[in-house]
Amino acid sequence: MHPPTAFTPQLGFASDNTAGASPQILAALQQANEGQAPAYGADDITLRVERRLAEIFERDVDVLLVPTGTAANSLALAALTPPWGSVLCHAHSHIANDECGAPQFYSGGARLALLDGAASKLDPALLAQEARRKAGDVHSMPPACVSITQATETGSVYTLDEIQAIGAVCRDAGLPLHMDGARFANALVSLGCTPAEMTWKAGVAALSFGATKNGVLGAEAIVLFEPGRAAELAYRRKRGGHLFSKMRLLSAQMDAYLADDLWLRNARQANAMAARLAAGMAGLPGIELQGPAEANILFCRLPTAAIDGLLAQGFRFYHDRWGPGVARLVTSFTTREADVDHFLAALRAQLR
Amino acid sequence: MHPPTAFTPQLGFASDNTAGASPQILAALQQANEGQAPAYGADDITLRVERRLAEIFERDVDVLLVPTGTAANSLALAALTPPWGSVLCHAHSHIANDECGAPQFYSGGARLALLDGAASKLDPALLAQEARRKAGDVHSMPPACVSITQATETGSVYTLDEIQAIGAVCRDAGLPLHMDGARFANALVSLGCTPAEMTWKAGVAALSFGATKNGVLGAEAIVLFEPGRAAELAYRRKRGGHLFSKMRLLSAQMDAYLADDLWLRNARQANAMAARLAAGMAGLPGIELQGPAEANILFCRLPTAAIDGLLAQGFRFYHDRWGPGVARLVTSFTTREADVDHFLAALRAQLR
Amino acid sequence: MHPPTAFTPQLGFASDNTAGASPQILAALQQANEGQAPAYGADDITLRVERRLAEIFERDVDVLLVPTGTAANSLALAALTPPWGSVLCHAHSHIANDECGAPQFYSGGARLALLDGAASKLDPALLAQEARRKAGDVHSMPPACVSITQATETGSVYTLDEIQAIGAVCRDAGLPLHMDGARFANALVSLGCTPAEMTWKAGVAALSFGATKNGVLGAEAIVLFEPGRAAELAYRRKRGGHLFSKMRLLSAQMDAYLADDLWLRNARQANAMAARLAAGMAGLPGIELQGPAEANILFCRLPTAAIDGLLAQGFRFYHDRWGPGVARLVTSFTTREADVDHFLAALRAQLR
Amino acid sequence: MHPPTAFTPQLGFASDNTAGASPQILAALQQANEGQAPAYGADDITLRVERRLAEIFERDVDVLLVPTGTAANSLALAALTPPWGSVLCHAHSHIANDECGAPQFYSGGARLALLDGAASKLDPALLAQEARRKAGDVHSMPPACVSITQATETGSVYTLDEIQAIGAVCRDAGLPLHMDGARFANALVSLGCTPAEMTWKAGVAALSFGATKNGVLGAEAIVLFEPGRAAELAYRRKRGGHLFSKMRLLSAQMDAYLADDLWLRNARQANAMAARLAAGMAGLPGIELQGPAEANILFCRLPTAAIDGLLAQGFRFYHDRWGPGVARLVTSFTTREADVDHFLAALRAQLR
Repeated sequence: MHPPTAFTPQLGFASDNTAGASPQILAALQQANEGQAPAYGADDITLRVERRLAEIFERDVDVLLVPTGTAANSLALAALTPPWGSVLCHAHSHIANDECGAPQFYSGGARLALLDGAASKLDPALLAQEARRKAGDVHSMPPACVSITQATETGSVYTLDEIQAIGAVCRDAGLPLHMDGARFANALVSLGCTPAEMTWKAGVAALSFGATKNGVLGAEAIVLFEPGRAAELAYRRKRGGHLFSKMRLLSAQMDAYLADDLWLRNARQANAMAARLAAGMAGLPGIELQGPAEANILFCRLPTAAIDGLLAQGFRFYHDRWGPGVARLVTSFTTREADVDHFLAALRAQLR
Repeated sequence: MHPPTAFTPQLGFASDNTAGASPQILAALQQANEGQAPAYGADDITLRVERRLAEIFERDVDVLLVPTGTAANSLALAALTPPWGSVLCHAHSHIANDECGAPQFYSGGARLALLDGAASKLDPALLAQEARRKAGDVHSMPPACVSITQATETGSVYTLDEIQAIGAVCRDAGLPLHMDGARFANALVSLGCTPAEMTWKAGVAALSFGATKNGVLGAEAIVLFEPGRAAELAYRRKRGGHLFSKMRLLSAQMDAYLADDLWLRNARQANAMAARLAAGMAGLPGIELQGPAEANILFCRLPTAAIDGLLAQGFRFYHDRWGPGVARLVTSFTTREADVDHFLAALRAQLR
Repeated sequence: MHPPTAFTPQLGFASDNTAGASPQILAALQQANEGQAPAYGADDITLRVERRLAEIFERDVDVLLVPTGTAANSLALAALTPPWGSVLCHAHSHIANDECGAPQFYSGGARLALLDGAASKLDPALLAQEARRKAGDVHSMPPACVSITQATETGSVYTLDEIQAIGAVCRDAGLPLHMDGARFANALVSLGCTPAEMTWKAGVAALSFGATKNGVLGAEAIVLFEPGRAAELAYRRKRGGHLFSKMRLLSAQMDAYLADDLWLRNARQANAMAARLAAGMAGLPGIELQGPAEANILFCRLPTAAIDGLLAQGFRFYHDRWGPGVARLVTSFTTREADVDHFLAALRAQLR
Repeated sequence: MHPPTAFTPQLGFASDNTAGASPQILAALQQANEGQAPAYGADDITLRVERRLAEIFERDVDVLLVPTGTAANSLALAALTPPWGSVLCHAHSHIANDECGAPQFYSGGARLALLDGAASKLDPALLAQEARRKAGDVHSMPPACVSITQATETGSVYTLDEIQAIGAVCRDAGLPLHMDGARFANALVSLGCTPAEMTWKAGVAALSFGATKNGVLGAEAIVLFEPGRAAELAYRRKRGGHLFSKMRLLSAQMDAYLADDLWLRNARQANAMAARLAAGMAGLPGIELQGPAEANILFCRLPTAAIDGLLAQGFRFYHDRWGPGVARLVTSFTTREADVDHFLAALRAQLR
């Protein structure tokens, strides 16, 4: 059961941000580093990335590269809400819990209106109700846009029907729809649909297209499916300090990420490893899976002794934040079958 | 005088941000990419960078890595001024002209009070007068801090005496002093002093320690010489979207930049090439140098025909922004003697 | 049952902001209008108001007069939270629902963390839990201060014990406590305690001392019980556009409001009229009181036909916002016994 | 020449904000105070003010009442510039020097670009140059709007030709033009033109229509000549804390101010008194007038001994802020001929 001698198992299941980048990314950086290039995004690689994203999404898009997901989300939202507006989002969303108020900062004071919904997904019926709440009332902060996360913070994935239903609510209420796609690729390969189907064809106006968690060191793209916001966002990006003089640092990463389906292959690997984890844990005594592994995150309930034992062996994952004994296991493009099997073996040993 | 056959001359003298990174930087990224690492700066490389900067500055410092100079400047200034304060700075400064209001954005609305002064340097006497102007008057925006640029936007370098004089004004008026060090290394090797002498020993409270223009792809450090602002800045950095999950993207660059005096060697090369340009142009007919080449920037006045001729040959530099016929030539760590000589030969040909 | 001929019944029970001011307020404005006075609050009346509030609160206080409750609340909160902080408050609070994001605006982007609790009051146990939630976590917006409303938006009144319990939680967590006292006087006469007991002795650091709803046309005071924030707030007030050149417009109102116990007499009248309403409605068939009339607001459930009938007769009140058939009746210092009796008679007629 | 026994001379020439209000204003407040009225501006008096301003300006306008000139200016400007824009204005302007950054605050970080020009007036030629400066350059803060002050802070008055010339520059550059009319009436009666001619017919898009300095206690109107900004400004006003629940406090003042030409009569009185001061001082030995008294402000140079002597007698005015011996004398609607003559007599006595 143990791996061969040379194998050093990866013990971290805490997050998909503890990995480095795919080798192709570093190679691309190396190559892009040669020679001089126009600054601030006027270079060939950046242009190529923009064209490539247009192909991927099967339509004209505006693209702005930024280094972090927080920058992508908060800049995109700032273009969708006035400072006195409400961003309707799930109470579990990253923008609400993990960005230190970046959306509020970039928007100039907008509010995140937190909604509930099963599996960390917005409920279209509830959304429809809130989307019209106090609209036009100068005393409240009117609904200005909607933000969903695909895949969600708890690893669930909106179906196309679900996104379309939310898109329809947004269209009826006149609210633009933003998608936080920090794990866009993981959701995409999970659904097996096209990028266009999962976004603008379902009503998404602006996307935070994530890459950092899925194979690059630090690069994300704001992708706009509706014209008219790019010029504003160019100013917003610059004054946020996110316009890189040597833009190739971002664009070369994104270029390699999109080449040869690297982004899809990486996501498939991460998702498969989460599924392997789930399959291996299903039916184990004392283990309760908290939902399917639709993307690369698995929530499960473990005996406290098992958690302690695994941690003592050096395994890393978050636990007891979402209820007693609940652990979150995250896989990444660097997770290998042997890493999963190593974990499962250790877990089974704990349960004995 | 001509380079050997295989030589491809570098034609760009527009800016030090058109170069890529030193090979050591890419090698360090490659190496840092291996394995898992704690996210958000809790990794070993980041820790090492912090220790190394403390050594370099010969004292305890707080360090925050960010990806761009605009981020470094505007975050640092936000910690030094309330939203209703005035940042006293030179009218030529980068924060005033080239950051799209990032200091205003990050500070929550502070004002840049633009002062004049020869060679793009603040005049201590004028500063002393403005530093106390309307202090305590609730109708105006009181002076809150002072920012100087070393080296300046026009390539001049404050002497230690000059920085100390400004530091003394700041101390008397109770205003913290910020230094925009986008070209810190160029100024340092120009003066031949220690980093400590050029900063906190002269009264600098907070430094934007630049690296991007001098050899890395995108990494800067905010260095704080006075305790008490790091916790605040950690929040400000995160909500600005500048806290990297895979922090090694920044820290590995900075680590390699500081190793083996790479930062000093790169700066010496850039400065030497500007000096070589100046020496080669001095005395040419129709050429008027606009000041010494103290760092890596040279301003000069050229005949219009010469400018046009050089541009037609593919040379790149800014001109006619600072007066008719005035050109700005910027060298970088990638500029070689042969590149300078190639330019000089072309220039002489134009003047004939 | 009908009032005597000359009597014109007041039909409005929608809010305590539909009344004008007490006659004494207008007389004071008339008197203050004479002659010249130093601008921006350096006049005698403003000074007198500050001294009078110190007497009323039995201690040194800092006072800033502003024209609206929204200005008082949002300025006070801006001094208690950094832009990346969370203001812990009840989900029913005015700052969360009725100020169009003014606290977010004045604080530069802080977040209101909405907590539940019976009778629109914060629950100390829940507060204690939230007050330490993610403190120091740079990814979230840390708890920065707590805000309670006395009397609450639904007319309930915190007991002294309840305020003290919340004050103790705040002290333990190091969070300053703000009180929105838009209906401060109504709560005070309801409890029968001293202003000191209801505020700083129970742990309140900053108070929005309301007057507009209780007898003046437009004047509120920010009262600070902890030193060190007045200078900052003076700047914040000015840049919010709330520093009046002819400050007597605010100070004369507040001066007369505090003279001869006008503020207490007005509040007693309003409260007594709400109690008279409650007494008159208790036991009526089909009427369900939703709680005691502790201050000047009464919530009750009425038959839909009765609501419609009353509105048709010209009565004004809000209904069906808080559940089907639920009406909110608000009395003011201008409400007379005959007005209440007129309403009760009309209600009884509807119920027949 | 001396006034009769009962006369108490007014000694204050420091500002037009040290006076109270015209008696008609207080009478209107008294009358408006009766009975209940809908809150937040849905009352009859507010409606009447809006209609009256439309008549005065001979066209449809949007009107928002606010309590202070700083609120009017900064709210209006916030609707005319994005947070990353530049407001082009004179270096002497009130928005730049006397509002503690309120325009920066309300706009979310915009910059005031300070231009020079004789007599505190913008120079159209210089403006034309700056209006296109770096437009579209994402690194700088692009020109977004222009603001002029009529009458200016130094008492000069733009002619209609001058306003039209500035309006033409704005139209060509696509920049909306704002007028700070804190002393609108003084300028209007000085020019003897119509309100329409001095504003929208000359290209003004938004006006801060002042009343406080000219006869009321605290009320100003934002008047919008271009449709499409009123809804946004309603939210901005509310979240600034400037929407009054008992709006009659503002609207009754403005209503009486506009009735029976009170605003014009008050301005004529103030201007006439400044002219009387100028006439009385012209030719006095040692006195140098610094320009004509076009509105209600007179700048003059006096012997230091005379300044000291006048101050010792209780006269109040600002001096030595604009150069040694330079005094600013401001008259108001409450200044009487006898007050001026009293001052002139005292001055002559000093000069003897």
